[in-house]
Amino acid sequence: MAQNLEHTISLLARTPAALDALLRDLPDAWTLRNEGENTWSAFDIVGHLVHGDRTDWMPRAKMILQFGETRAFEPFDRWGQARESEGKSLGQLLDEFARLRRDSLAELRALNLRPEDLARRGRHPALGVVTLSELLATWAAHDLTHLHQISRVMAHQYRKAVGPWAAYLGVLQCAGHSAP
Amino acid sequence: MAQNLEHTISLLARTPAALDALLRDLPDAWTLRNEGENTWSAFDIVGHLVHGDRTDWMPRAKMILQFGETRAFEPFDRWGQARESEGKSLGQLLDEFARLRRDSLAELRALNLRPEDLARRGRHPALGVVTLSELLATWAAHDLTHLHQISRVMAHQYRKAVGPWAAYLGVLQCAGHSAP
Repeated sequence: MAQNLEHTISLLARTPAALDALLRDLPDAWTLRNEGENTWSAFDIVGHLVHGDRTDWMPRAKMILQFGETRAFEPFDRWGQARESEGKSLGQLLDEFARLRRDSLAELRALNLRPEDLARRGRHPALGVVTLSELLATWAAHDLTHLHQISRVMAHQYRKAVGPWAAYLGVLQCAGHSAP
Repeated sequence: MAQNLEHTISLLARTPAALDALLRDLPDAWTLRNEGENTWSAFDIVGHLVHGDRTDWMPRAKMILQFGETRAFEPFDRWGQARESEGKSLGQLLDEFARLRRDSLAELRALNLRPEDLARRGRHPALGVVTLSELLATWAAHDLTHLHQISRVMAHQYRKAVGPWAAYLGVLQCAGHSAP
C-alpha cells in the first residue's frame, strides 16, 4: 500500500483551510482549553503544526535527497510550538500555517519527485531507516492525527454538558493516544 | 459545567465549512474508503450528519418544548444516511449539510431560548430523562465525534504507507470507539 503523492499533496493542501474554517474566531473556551496538565489546546496544536512545517517535513525530505542514510534527521521538538506561538493570536497562527504550508508544497512540487526518488532512504534518529515515501505519507497522517486530537480536546470541554449522551459519543471514550 | 448556548452555536455554525474545506474534491481514495466491513467512509459520515440535521436535532429540541417528558423521541436511525446519500456526490452532500445546518441554526436562534428553557426535560427512548441543554451540547459534541471519526478513517488509508512512523501517530492507535 504505497502512497500516491498527488493524494498526499491533495490532503496536505486542505488542512490549513479546514482548521481555519473550524477554529478562527471560535470562543476561547473552545480553543484555549486543554485536557488537563501537560496536554494541548487547539491553539497549542496549531502552533505544533506551524512548527512542523517550519522545521520538520520539508527539511527532512531534503536531507534524505542530499544525505541519504548517512545523516540522521534532527529530532523533532514536540514542544517547540511554545516559542512558535508566544504572543500570537490563533488567527495569526492560522495565517502562518496557511502560508508555510503553501510554501512547503510549492517546494515539494518543484522537486518533481519520481517513483525512484520516493524509494530513497534516510535515517530517523529513533526509528532507523525510513523512505522518502514514508516521510511524505506521515506528513499527511500527522495532519490527521492532530485533527483527531483537536476534535477530542474540544469535545472534552462538553464532557459534562452532554449528560447521559456521553455514553454514545465515541470521541469521549478516546483515551488520548494522540497526545501530545 | 453547563453549556454556553452561544458557544454551542459558534461551533455548530463552523462544522459544514470545515468539512467542506477538508473534503471537497479530495480524491475518492480518501473519501470513499472505510475501515473495513460495516464501517463508514468520510462520504458516509457526511451523509449521517445530513440525516441528523434533517431528522434528529431540531425535531427533538421542539419535541422537548412541546411535549416535555410525556413523549419519547423517535429513535435516531444511525444507518439512515444510506437513503440520504443514494445517488449523490460528496459535493452535493456537503452543500446539503451547509444549507440544512444554516436553517437549523436560524430555527434555533428564533426560539430565543432562556436559561429556564434549557433546563426543560424530555425523554430519550433509551437514555431516559434528558434536558434541552444536554441535547444541544450533544449536537455540538456529535459534530466533533464525527470529525474525530473522519480523521481516523482517512488516516487508516495510510496505515501501511507511513511505515515505522505508525508507532508515533496516535490516530492509528485509535480503536474506533466512535464507529459508527
